[in-house]
Amino acid sequence: MNLTKFNHKIGEIRDDRTRGASELARRCLSLLIEVAATDNPAGSAAELRDQLLHLSEQLAQARPSMTPIQRLLRLWQQALMLDPVLDLASVRRVAIAEAERLIMVSRQAVADCALHTAQLLGDSKTVLTHSISSTVVEACRLCKHKNLQMIVTESRPLQEGQQWAQRLSAWQVPTLYITDAQMGLFAAQADVALVGADSILADGSVVNKAGTYLLALAARACEIPFYVCCESFKWREPGQSALVLEEMPAAELATPDWPGVIVKNVYFDITPPQLVSAWIDEKGVHWPNWGE
Amino acid sequence: MNLTKFNHKIGEIRDDRTRGASELARRCLSLLIEVAATDNPAGSAAELRDQLLHLSEQLAQARPSMTPIQRLLRLWQQALMLDPVLDLASVRRVAIAEAERLIMVSRQAVADCALHTAQLLGDSKTVLTHSISSTVVEACRLCKHKNLQMIVTESRPLQEGQQWAQRLSAWQVPTLYITDAQMGLFAAQADVALVGADSILADGSVVNKAGTYLLALAARACEIPFYVCCESFKWREPGQSALVLEEMPAAELATPDWPGVIVKNVYFDITPPQLVSAWIDEKGVHWPNWGE
Repeated sequence: MNLTKFNHKIGEIRDDRTRGASELARRCLSLLIEVAATDNPAGSAAELRDQLLHLSEQLAQARPSMTPIQRLLRLWQQALMLDPVLDLASVRRVAIAEAERLIMVSRQAVADCALHTAQLLGDSKTVLTHSISSTVVEACRLCKHKNLQMIVTESRPLQEGQQWAQRLSAWQVPTLYITDAQMGLFAAQADVALVGADSILADGSVVNKAGTYLLALAARACEIPFYVCCESFKWREPGQSALVLEEMPAAELATPDWPGVIVKNVYFDITPPQLVSAWIDEKGVHWPNWGE
Repeated sequence: MNLTKFNHKIGEIRDDRTRGASELARRCLSLLIEVAATDNPAGSAAELRDQLLHLSEQLAQARPSMTPIQRLLRLWQQALMLDPVLDLASVRRVAIAEAERLIMVSRQAVADCALHTAQLLGDSKTVLTHSISSTVVEACRLCKHKNLQMIVTESRPLQEGQQWAQRLSAWQVPTLYITDAQMGLFAAQADVALVGADSILADGSVVNKAGTYLLALAARACEIPFYVCCESFKWREPGQSALVLEEMPAAELATPDWPGVIVKNVYFDITPPQLVSAWIDEKGVHWPNWGE
């Protein structure tokens, strides 16, 4: 893979509005496999390693709101740096093997997290969710024959709730589809609010699609639990740099041009940990221990 | 005006998504003026009066979430019923004069309410609002040279926020335009949240465009005041029938047809009085007196 093609692929990851943070992290690892597997003009093993580390760093910075990309690529970089650099072939082998391993670890973590979530939900629940998360989708798939009912939001601006509604329709899960603005009205009809996350800050704050904070407030007001399910790669480490909330092109809102009016399209918001009833990851359910 | 034309006009009022409750109430009164002014086949004064009362009752029931329609038409009906029925001409005269008077009273109430709201806002405020209310528009017009800044929502499904943004642009008021889902994110940047209302329940609960409840929750969480401005005709009387939250056609959400998925388009939600910092009407500002 040459540099032009690689830059094009990074651009695709940066512009991707439909895939979640875990899936994009695995795409970044796949991209590094492709680069490592390609014959390239690196003269030495050290040169190849530096080149791979440089490219992975560009990938790590492509989606600042999505922590698993950064965390999985850091693990991959560490494996590459710890390896004694013997020859070109061994650098290639380690780069590919470690990326493949991390892809499997990520997949397994999402699957385990969904399993714990499904167990927590149990039978006969009406679940209100916002946006679409692959972990929430998998958890709901596991519950689809357990008298599950769903309330899903359209999720402006790109209406990813439509994909979700289509899938729930195929599963024959009774579903209500609402505008984001109706979340307050329908929280009272749900047993539980459940979302995935793009990142979790060190204090447990949840970074997820804009509107998640409103859902958490409505869940608290209606006295239903607000659960967040995501694998532990989404947790930010205490030392990690401040998280940037990504803003996407205003054109997605399809408004006219009004002089003096700025159209904002911030994709994520932050839900404070006090509004979270439990965090679920691949290890299990974590309840808050306020005051302990 | 014949019955076919009248039914068509009622249909227009029922389907109207762009006008607020006060404006529609005045349209109902105008419609009654038109009916009263038309030569019609009523044989006697009593027959004409009964006919007018019957038509006004149909109008009163056209928009169940919009209290001013019911309240203004009830006042009009009372005037008609109290009048000693002398002859056809006098019934016509009373019907027209009373409708004209109530239109003026309604207009004045909205203007006075906006004035009190503008005084409460004062100078140099950033105001976050949801949907569009003619009272909020008028209050902001009065503040437009007072270093006002606005944050307005698109307000799905019909994006009436676009009309609002266009007007603010013409006024040269610096404005941010956001999706409804971004309200939680932007409440922290506002000094005050301000909405109109379609109705106020007897306990002070606010019936307004769906999403208003979420805005009130976000305002409370961000510790900014949440003000509701509307003339007193929007307050429901203690004895009045339970309010129905109107649901509009799902087609407005422009979704595909998914078997088993019900698309909900409830236009209004209810914000409990505990979240309201103050109600403003034509008489002034009313602060809550919890516990007094």
